[in-house]
Amino acid sequence: MTVIHKRLWMKSMSFCWLLTTAIGYAQNIDSLFIKKISNDILTNGKAYDNLKVLCKTVGGRLSGSAQMYKAEAWGITTLKAAGADTTYLQACKVPHWVRGGQDKLTAIYTDAKGKPTKKTVDALSLGNAIGTGNTFVQAPVLLINNFDELEKKKAEVKGKIVFYNYPFNPTYIQPFTAYAEAGVYRRTGPSRAAKYGAVAVIVRSMAGGTDNQPHTGATLYDTTVPKIPCAAIGLQDADWIGQWLASGKKLAFNYQSAAHFLPDTIAHNVIGEIKGSTFPKEIITIGGHLDSWDPAEGANDDGAGCVHAIEVLRTLQAIGYQPKRTIRIVLFANEENGLRGATQYAETGKKTDETFYFGLESDAGSFTPRGFSCMANTAQLEKMQVWIPLLKPYGVYHITPGNAGADVEPLYEKFKTPVAELVPDAQRYFDLHHTRADVFENVHKRELAMGAVNMTALIYLIDTYGL
Amino acid sequence: MTVIHKRLWMKSMSFCWLLTTAIGYAQNIDSLFIKKISNDILTNGKAYDNLKVLCKTVGGRLSGSAQMYKAEAWGITTLKAAGADTTYLQACKVPHWVRGGQDKLTAIYTDAKGKPTKKTVDALSLGNAIGTGNTFVQAPVLLINNFDELEKKKAEVKGKIVFYNYPFNPTYIQPFTAYAEAGVYRRTGPSRAAKYGAVAVIVRSMAGGTDNQPHTGATLYDTTVPKIPCAAIGLQDADWIGQWLASGKKLAFNYQSAAHFLPDTIAHNVIGEIKGSTFPKEIITIGGHLDSWDPAEGANDDGAGCVHAIEVLRTLQAIGYQPKRTIRIVLFANEENGLRGATQYAETGKKTDETFYFGLESDAGSFTPRGFSCMANTAQLEKMQVWIPLLKPYGVYHITPGNAGADVEPLYEKFKTPVAELVPDAQRYFDLHHTRADVFENVHKRELAMGAVNMTALIYLIDTYGL
Repeated sequence: MTVIHKRLWMKSMSFCWLLTTAIGYAQNIDSLFIKKISNDILTNGKAYDNLKVLCKTVGGRLSGSAQMYKAEAWGITTLKAAGADTTYLQACKVPHWVRGGQDKLTAIYTDAKGKPTKKTVDALSLGNAIGTGNTFVQAPVLLINNFDELEKKKAEVKGKIVFYNYPFNPTYIQPFTAYAEAGVYRRTGPSRAAKYGAVAVIVRSMAGGTDNQPHTGATLYDTTVPKIPCAAIGLQDADWIGQWLASGKKLAFNYQSAAHFLPDTIAHNVIGEIKGSTFPKEIITIGGHLDSWDPAEGANDDGAGCVHAIEVLRTLQAIGYQPKRTIRIVLFANEENGLRGATQYAETGKKTDETFYFGLESDAGSFTPRGFSCMANTAQLEKMQVWIPLLKPYGVYHITPGNAGADVEPLYEKFKTPVAELVPDAQRYFDLHHTRADVFENVHKRELAMGAVNMTALIYLIDTYGL
Repeated sequence: MTVIHKRLWMKSMSFCWLLTTAIGYAQNIDSLFIKKISNDILTNGKAYDNLKVLCKTVGGRLSGSAQMYKAEAWGITTLKAAGADTTYLQACKVPHWVRGGQDKLTAIYTDAKGKPTKKTVDALSLGNAIGTGNTFVQAPVLLINNFDELEKKKAEVKGKIVFYNYPFNPTYIQPFTAYAEAGVYRRTGPSRAAKYGAVAVIVRSMAGGTDNQPHTGATLYDTTVPKIPCAAIGLQDADWIGQWLASGKKLAFNYQSAAHFLPDTIAHNVIGEIKGSTFPKEIITIGGHLDSWDPAEGANDDGAGCVHAIEVLRTLQAIGYQPKRTIRIVLFANEENGLRGATQYAETGKKTDETFYFGLESDAGSFTPRGFSCMANTAQLEKMQVWIPLLKPYGVYHITPGNAGADVEPLYEKFKTPVAELVPDAQRYFDLHHTRADVFENVHKRELAMGAVNMTALIYLIDTYGL
């Protein structure tokens, strides 16, 4: 594209601006205020630099790990630097699962020329899984494409390693829909196979990309059946192994994993506030989760959410906005494998004379923002939707009912507090989610900043006009 | 983000679907048809594979280069495979500029310790620029931050190398707005400096990213002043050199470039059609440009646009849609440094008994789609805007007046044909534009596919309902 032919872009942008400002009364003031927010973030924003420090000096920070504590210290320091008038830690008990070393998965089969073959397959134990202790598990592999097939073949399962090869449905426009559908194989698949006597489970990764990254993530054992080791493999390996088995050929897996639980330990929600000037007891909670899976830096899941939340506070302070209500940033502990930080916050985060007024989370990545997804009553939702024209110039086109972020949803469930989540474009999210590729380099500076612009704008509107 | 808390995504999606289908009459049929388009592209789409072949077996394909001819052959083959009933080449004369080898730029200065220093600076000659022949140009550097400053300092320019350090404005939400503003320094800056006696020009790259990639792109000499060599440097180098000079320190550049023009040569618009069943003389033109700059593979600029256009044809054929009007895919020649393919097409592409009914281009990258930008009259624009609810589930939220793609705009200018361009999210575009990083690996398969979905849907609606 040449520059000459871009002359109309500014015209097009002016058109959007006119549309926005034509709506009336206070919206002109609000448009200008939101532009001020945007200018500050795009010029002086700290989200990207803060994320770099978190990713590169702390790294992966699974609950109970040494990095978790380092991340908590980073959180306090960064919240203070952003301008919080109060910072503190809120303790909660968290599980302490460790991978214990490199997972080792070997495929054992007779190749097309009749030669016995062993091939290393890149695998990551699922989170919260048991390992194989000081030994290994080795058994023939049974291909199971879905749970219906598991039920049909239940007599064949005993003594086998079940390989669930359930793919992301590519026709869903929203990859989160595919994740919601396929994720159940990671979460409940191991115990469902164990019920019929499987000795281990390997799952196709919850992803729809073009690479071979294995994706970890929590599994959830049914305590009424034996716990069995379980791991994820990448899509390319899942494809060839799936085709191999589907053609009637035999294959065995040898799997070794040192995964195990240590005793529960103490983690903290990391909290920073600006006290409200008019309604200091009405708490607007804004958060991301500080913990991440261990294979990488948790840059998108959910370092981005943490620096988004901190950026809201920094920006309001930097432009001299005095909030009416208390703005409370919470970097939640243990979202990935227990949700204990969020549970603790909803149970004890509110003093008896405080109200949880609103909750906002960013936990869907650092990508270009598209909208907000909410749990709220109709009146609250409609009030927020009136603001869409103010957010459109910054890329947010919809505010719709739906998921609102695992860490703030308990506020809705327990107190009917309206809660929302930033919805970034999701096409790239499941290339990185819970993989070794979730690193700082896979975050785009301006896309990250645009998320913070829209979050800060929404918080400004809610604080100013109420819900 | 855990899977457990994504259960509401599907609910949220159902809500969008209801919104879409509640509008009435034929829109339910259209929704289902567009879903069919989407399913085919997301399941059987060839855009990504086609782009891989173009990028990896042809590569960069500047007008007049051997790769340009290879790309034309690729275009015919790929259009035939996609199901075109007719394919042909339309000849046009194109400029044949060559870089002639690696640009060499050295900064010469006395370092902080008083030591004479030479430092290589990564540079790319601007396109269409003259080189330095068999010699080099060496001169003190004059920092010019903008054209106002050039006018103030015009007496100092003679014999100098002017360094334009005009930055992308980070506060513009749309990077194309920043490009429209900064691009003039690349396009007219060299001649404006030459007018006052500059011997060469170095420009800060037209970009707002975090890396040091130099960005090439066409310059446009004013024929009334001497032509001088000119090149772009990356943002990190521009920053340190700008700061160095702004602090009053001296610096000279030595620049060597073998850039030159060879005689004009013959290139071709590559065309493939499906003949319309009802109005075969009404031509719907869909295109991208086949040429690219030389440093990389032109994956985003504009290989993506070529495979988008071809995918529209492939999809309509694959799902058995018989267009009423003739669908004509045009892979335009020479957009980057002459626009001769588009000019030729508008002048001679229409037989006397044909009408250019509509034109659609993709030349703004492979990223997640956001909207369409149009040149059309009010009635046509409003008609298209009625279809927005049909496109929303696929990410297109706006159809607005604005730029419509350099290659189809002549159809509007000459014949008042309504024309439009796909608007992908642009935050990442100027990280890659005209750099060595514009390679296949920087294209996301599903984002590319979603562009094709929306383009095909729009063409289906225009063909079915007219404009």
